[in-house]
Amino acid sequence: MTDARQQLIAGIRARFGERAVITEAAEVEPWLTDWRGRYHGASPAILSPASTEEVAAMVAMAAELVVPLVPQGGNTSMVGGATPPADGSALLLSLRRMNRIRSIDAESNLAVAEAGVILANLHDAVADADRRFPLTLGSRGSCTIGGLTATNAGGTQVLRFGTMRALVAGVEAVLPDGSVHDGLGALKKDNRGYSIDQLLVGSEGTIGIITAVSLRLVPAITSRAVAWLGLGGPQAALDVLRMLELETNAIEGFEIVPGDSLSLVLEHIPGTRAPLGEEYPWHALVEATASSARDEPPAALLERLLAPALESGLIADAVIGASEAQAEAFWRIRDSISEAERASGPATQHDISVPVADMPRFMVEAEREVEAAFPGARASAFGHLGDGNVHFHVHAGSRAADDWYEREASAVTRFVDDLVAAAGGSISAEHGIGQTKKAELERLSPASRMFALRSIKHALDPHGLMNPGKLVD
Amino acid sequence: MTDARQQLIAGIRARFGERAVITEAAEVEPWLTDWRGRYHGASPAILSPASTEEVAAMVAMAAELVVPLVPQGGNTSMVGGATPPADGSALLLSLRRMNRIRSIDAESNLAVAEAGVILANLHDAVADADRRFPLTLGSRGSCTIGGLTATNAGGTQVLRFGTMRALVAGVEAVLPDGSVHDGLGALKKDNRGYSIDQLLVGSEGTIGIITAVSLRLVPAITSRAVAWLGLGGPQAALDVLRMLELETNAIEGFEIVPGDSLSLVLEHIPGTRAPLGEEYPWHALVEATASSARDEPPAALLERLLAPALESGLIADAVIGASEAQAEAFWRIRDSISEAERASGPATQHDISVPVADMPRFMVEAEREVEAAFPGARASAFGHLGDGNVHFHVHAGSRAADDWYEREASAVTRFVDDLVAAAGGSISAEHGIGQTKKAELERLSPASRMFALRSIKHALDPHGLMNPGKLVD
Repeated sequence: MTDARQQLIAGIRARFGERAVITEAAEVEPWLTDWRGRYHGASPAILSPASTEEVAAMVAMAAELVVPLVPQGGNTSMVGGATPPADGSALLLSLRRMNRIRSIDAESNLAVAEAGVILANLHDAVADADRRFPLTLGSRGSCTIGGLTATNAGGTQVLRFGTMRALVAGVEAVLPDGSVHDGLGALKKDNRGYSIDQLLVGSEGTIGIITAVSLRLVPAITSRAVAWLGLGGPQAALDVLRMLELETNAIEGFEIVPGDSLSLVLEHIPGTRAPLGEEYPWHALVEATASSARDEPPAALLERLLAPALESGLIADAVIGASEAQAEAFWRIRDSISEAERASGPATQHDISVPVADMPRFMVEAEREVEAAFPGARASAFGHLGDGNVHFHVHAGSRAADDWYEREASAVTRFVDDLVAAAGGSISAEHGIGQTKKAELERLSPASRMFALRSIKHALDPHGLMNPGKLVD
Repeated sequence: MTDARQQLIAGIRARFGERAVITEAAEVEPWLTDWRGRYHGASPAILSPASTEEVAAMVAMAAELVVPLVPQGGNTSMVGGATPPADGSALLLSLRRMNRIRSIDAESNLAVAEAGVILANLHDAVADADRRFPLTLGSRGSCTIGGLTATNAGGTQVLRFGTMRALVAGVEAVLPDGSVHDGLGALKKDNRGYSIDQLLVGSEGTIGIITAVSLRLVPAITSRAVAWLGLGGPQAALDVLRMLELETNAIEGFEIVPGDSLSLVLEHIPGTRAPLGEEYPWHALVEATASSARDEPPAALLERLLAPALESGLIADAVIGASEAQAEAFWRIRDSISEAERASGPATQHDISVPVADMPRFMVEAEREVEAAFPGARASAFGHLGDGNVHFHVHAGSRAADDWYEREASAVTRFVDDLVAAAGGSISAEHGIGQTKKAELERLSPASRMFALRSIKHALDPHGLMNPGKLVD
């Protein structure tokens, strides 16, 4: 290990005490691998600051000693975004001790949470104030506010309230020189030049370390209902969504599920059962909510709005789950697709987006083209149709072999990414770039995008000390 | 004039024809002074591209010849943001020929407008598609989409729909090297690194020239009602707003008007009359809208929600204007305040914001402190209370003299800006920095902000050729 890293560790220990640095190998080890187990990094220590001041001091010391830092929250990145380089050249900096909710202002509908606050804990805390933080995703029990902000996370409620970008009212962050940017004032109007807060959202720790975030809250939900629809195809699903959006703003979830995915879930996930009596090629899950007694009850709303679509044949069949148990059961099907697919053999997974209006065409054509290019493979797409974002999976199918993933995954990825680029879409809708998508970002971006990304990275982090090897060098 | 500028003019003429460059002094002249008449610039020509390709070529040619460019839309900047330097070193580049609305997609609620489209024309065009672009301001007949985006404009409907930042779904811009960033795809989810679109919003032409914008639309309004309230103070006004926001999301405007401002309007603006029978120290104008027959009629909604506040004494008196003529009459009072104030002598104007919850305290205390520091002067604040943004004016009062503005304006400005900074606010809520607020931005910003602004500017525009002398060098 170089002297600089040891010097930094000793310096931080001397200044902030034992708790501020973890060097015990057994305690460091679990945080060196991403949760999917694809990336294995090395780091002699985890820096563990307890306050913004400590983060600022550590970043300044690291800058002086030219030691790279890898910020980490819940370590739930899907793209290796929080795993340090394998050569041990960088130190991990964990925000997990900074787990205080600094304030909840129900009147202003704002909360300030430190970077290490776990999403589920924030949900609980604001619920006590009769408010809601309207973003959720599978890893809510582990992922942190800092990581969610640094990756502009999405999830299943984006349709109504947007991604983190729309929910972040302000950011506090330590910049690479150790100075603190304080945007927590959450001004509704502020035109003092480029938005540093918005620049930090989605920056993946590459130009600063987010230490706290001011978040927008919305009224708590008083009731919800979930409908399960049987449909002929993705265009019908989008037509239903458009019709609903014209009539109400109470729709919070709209997920599309192909018949094959439902079958896999029913086969592999115990306790699941088909919501509808017959089989349909496509399905949609629709969630509506109410947040006051004055709002139309969600089940009645869905029934009223879906009835004409059933009559006209746009929807083949529908069932509305008004009880919480039914709503949970429908969501469990949607949330179990990835797990069920894993049970059916290897697959590549692509988190992609295209313009919403183009998604039905894209889903159908891209599946066909992938299956033609890789005969025997099976493509399927499911997820957030209303956001123009699906999880596009390619299953090995009859091509399956022990080394299929190693042999074919990158060719499949390039093929899918080319289709996405041709449709004017994004090769990363939700998960970010991290390590996984760095080469593809470079391959498919026009010169203007790489120029802008590189210029910003180099300007703010000239020595490349912030989360090296992620997003852009 | 240096050879480089003449060479550029000749080169552009040769490549794009006579229409692409205006050199006739009489035609150039009107665009060399800002509309308030405070800044007088010089430029040998106005470049006048008709397409994104032409802008890109002109920027590339200018970069090669090292000629600075000043982009200009409707020339309605309040801070000298579109006026070229007085030494004639830069050329104006007008986007006004790029005035095409490229598309209106009512289903997707998106429109793509070129930078030179005038706001009022966009309003009319989307109305034909039964949609609305929910941002408006006084200069709507002159200001352009490019300028609105480059300055992150606000206005009187920000309360519900946000500033331009929230309404911009994507940006097309020519970067300083002449490459074109195309964000018009308007992906709802896109995590390919730093958001270049959001970076361009509010960048004041200093890191690229916006050529077209993808804009979010909302349903057209079917009816509106405007209430005029008599109130005891700003805190009561904010309490009313909070109460309304808990009950409905149909409130689109909430403007606070002090009694003195109303008196000035009644005195100086012909045809205005007091909405209420008695005089009150403070007033609020509240607008509610409906966009479908199913929505509660706005007049009934306001009546229902305001009644308890009248009963409890939170509101002293109220009148609801349900007819369009009454609504217009109430708004005319609000919109005439600046004009009426001009008739009553010189004043300094400060477009400032603080956290919403703190605005009532700030308004009262800042007025008192200014009047104590400048005896005889009179301070008043009015405007967008719900956004934490007021227009804070300091009238010369008994200090008035021919040279008052020249003598005292900057001392007053520094005093007000210090109060804003102490409250964690912004010295530019809506208008941007431009030339006017550049020194104050530098004086009051922490090192972290200036470091970030400068780093970004220098990285993307290393030769300082984009709108020189504005925002940051």
